[in-house]
Amino acid sequence: MSTALPEHEYNTRLETVRNRLAEHDSDADAAVWFGATSIEYLTGFDHIQTERPVALAVTDKRTELTVPRLEVERVEDNPKIDAVHHYFDYPGGEPIETVAEMLSELGVESVLADADGAPGVMGYQGPALSAFVEVDTQLWVERMRWAKTDAELDLIRESARWANLGHRYLADYTEVGEHPATVSQRASLEASRVMLDTLGDRYIARTRGDGPVHAGYISGPQTALPHGHTANRRLESGDVLITGATANVDGYYSELERTMFVGEPTDEQIHYFELMLEAQTIAIEALGPGVELSDVDDAVWSYFEEQGVTELAQHHVGHNIGMGGHEPPYIDRGWGEHVASEHTDYGDGDAVMEPGHVYTIEPGIYTDNAGYRHSDTIAITDDGIEWLTYFPRDLESNVIRID
Amino acid sequence: MSTALPEHEYNTRLETVRNRLAEHDSDADAAVWFGATSIEYLTGFDHIQTERPVALAVTDKRTELTVPRLEVERVEDNPKIDAVHHYFDYPGGEPIETVAEMLSELGVESVLADADGAPGVMGYQGPALSAFVEVDTQLWVERMRWAKTDAELDLIRESARWANLGHRYLADYTEVGEHPATVSQRASLEASRVMLDTLGDRYIARTRGDGPVHAGYISGPQTALPHGHTANRRLESGDVLITGATANVDGYYSELERTMFVGEPTDEQIHYFELMLEAQTIAIEALGPGVELSDVDDAVWSYFEEQGVTELAQHHVGHNIGMGGHEPPYIDRGWGEHVASEHTDYGDGDAVMEPGHVYTIEPGIYTDNAGYRHSDTIAITDDGIEWLTYFPRDLESNVIRID
Repeated sequence: MSTALPEHEYNTRLETVRNRLAEHDSDADAAVWFGATSIEYLTGFDHIQTERPVALAVTDKRTELTVPRLEVERVEDNPKIDAVHHYFDYPGGEPIETVAEMLSELGVESVLADADGAPGVMGYQGPALSAFVEVDTQLWVERMRWAKTDAELDLIRESARWANLGHRYLADYTEVGEHPATVSQRASLEASRVMLDTLGDRYIARTRGDGPVHAGYISGPQTALPHGHTANRRLESGDVLITGATANVDGYYSELERTMFVGEPTDEQIHYFELMLEAQTIAIEALGPGVELSDVDDAVWSYFEEQGVTELAQHHVGHNIGMGGHEPPYIDRGWGEHVASEHTDYGDGDAVMEPGHVYTIEPGIYTDNAGYRHSDTIAITDDGIEWLTYFPRDLESNVIRID
Repeated sequence: MSTALPEHEYNTRLETVRNRLAEHDSDADAAVWFGATSIEYLTGFDHIQTERPVALAVTDKRTELTVPRLEVERVEDNPKIDAVHHYFDYPGGEPIETVAEMLSELGVESVLADADGAPGVMGYQGPALSAFVEVDTQLWVERMRWAKTDAELDLIRESARWANLGHRYLADYTEVGEHPATVSQRASLEASRVMLDTLGDRYIARTRGDGPVHAGYISGPQTALPHGHTANRRLESGDVLITGATANVDGYYSELERTMFVGEPTDEQIHYFELMLEAQTIAIEALGPGVELSDVDDAVWSYFEEQGVTELAQHHVGHNIGMGGHEPPYIDRGWGEHVASEHTDYGDGDAVMEPGHVYTIEPGIYTDNAGYRHSDTIAITDDGIEWLTYFPRDLESNVIRID
């Protein structure tokens, strides 16, 4: 277990993009990123993506960053960054002009960028980067993030531990008459406190005010909606819960979800729970290195067809996870066709699972009045899989006794 | 006070974009949005922006929506939506092809859209919308959101009440030796619970698991960083706190921030606090309808120059707020030049404050070891301003006694 990504991981990542740049079939002399997650992936500098652009430039020798004034102190001690440029604020500080100046000082005339200028977040508007230098597109980091290294897996394993604690508290605090929101917040609070007390100085702050553990649930009729909200109601005997728990460990996440019952489930509820559980087992048994992602979703769909419940399915089996809560590739019947299409920058090898991919496996069944979904976080290894989440999946362990 | 946006507001918004469409100097026969906030603004349908595209089409007569399967039940009862189209999931369900079919059934061949296809969120990749219909750009909703109606102001007023309660709890729970994260989470939890109990059926769920009230702070040395994190430390006597509190009321937010002291502040701390307070007062006194946004930032900057502290400033005075935490226009010395530039779709009138704009006023001062910033949410009225947040600003009210 580990709670911080080792420095050499960043060096390897930067080396990888430098090699890509050198090998690229263009005369670009820098790679540029405006996306916050890509910048964090390459340098460890995390920031909230706002109307204030941040841009990273990597040349064969230098790694330089342009930030708004208010981020300077958060980055200037970062050993991966050779120089920090800044503008005062948006728009008066002229962010893109500052980026252009950084590139000009680096002697850069042509770049491969993740976008031709800063994203239109929070009403941002500004000049294209191509008004200053030649710009072609690369989405290298998005693709590099698919397969996790052992060090990244360690962080996701650590996340799964604290997610499990948050989830345990969620179940423990559940009582008839309680507010779902209050139970969720209390479980998050108590698990976060234990995590902070346990890790001490080893905890890397990546959040503001809330977290690092988040645990919560959707309850009762709202579970019929995969993206339902936490309604203002009290828990009742007979409620179905769909839980969710995660923890931020140096920027990485796991995902743990369970279908739980407040009191004894009905026969109908048991029927759908077991059906969902079998679908999840089928998906997990289908996982492995070299497996087509589409095949995993197909396996579940075939089972749903056999059971006559395709009408109750509302989404595919799952997704990759890491620094983002949802990351490609997606376990979807259309994935193989998608990577082969002209609308993506993917290639043929991108249709299959590889060691280091980390998937949420979460096929769901949604009736008129309740939903049924577990989600586990599972890594693809060289010769099989590794379960990262481990809260028990069986019915008995997911019934909350209320008397 | 009100806790839900009246239905007629949505009708007015849809009518406004229909009029724009009719008046537009093109033969576009629909307006299209992929942005989640714009879709929520026009229809009341809120969703989390993910890799699964959602698209709204408005023609002279019809309002139709394309969603992934998992959102269907959340939107089909919405009286503003005339028809709901869906694809199963991304990418296999072919989201953009489904949007194109919706447009084709509507007889639409040319659109004004907020983007030429879905945004690249969570690794989304897919065809441009212009592969199917003629696409030109409009950013109407972003601009419409600048000035709030009375009904919108009511929601922000209501948000400010609950933010105030969360903030009160934050101060009450602060003690030497406590975790900043735990105090923050506890204040959020308790204020949320009171809000839910008070509003009962009038509360509109817009969040999952956490909220509706968020209150928290950055503490000690981290306050020197405007975007600092919540460090894993215990509160100490002499700590400076920069707080933040808000509440989600039917999708709208307010912003309340205070600089507080754990125990008696030092002379230096009092000096910077009073300086910050005066800067905020200067900004607030400069606000009003017809006022150039740049002038408000300039007024604060002149004061900082006079006091010799420009080196301690790290950002402009503030921003508009509403459905987004940060919204244009921005109170920035460069705003006037920005709206006049070729890089925005703004016009000359967009350089000034108008009735209905709601601004955060938050000039800050950052020394080597502490930050000083209040933020208040203030509406521009026909003949002046209205304070929406109301936690006391003075030093005495912001010292937390610890003995």
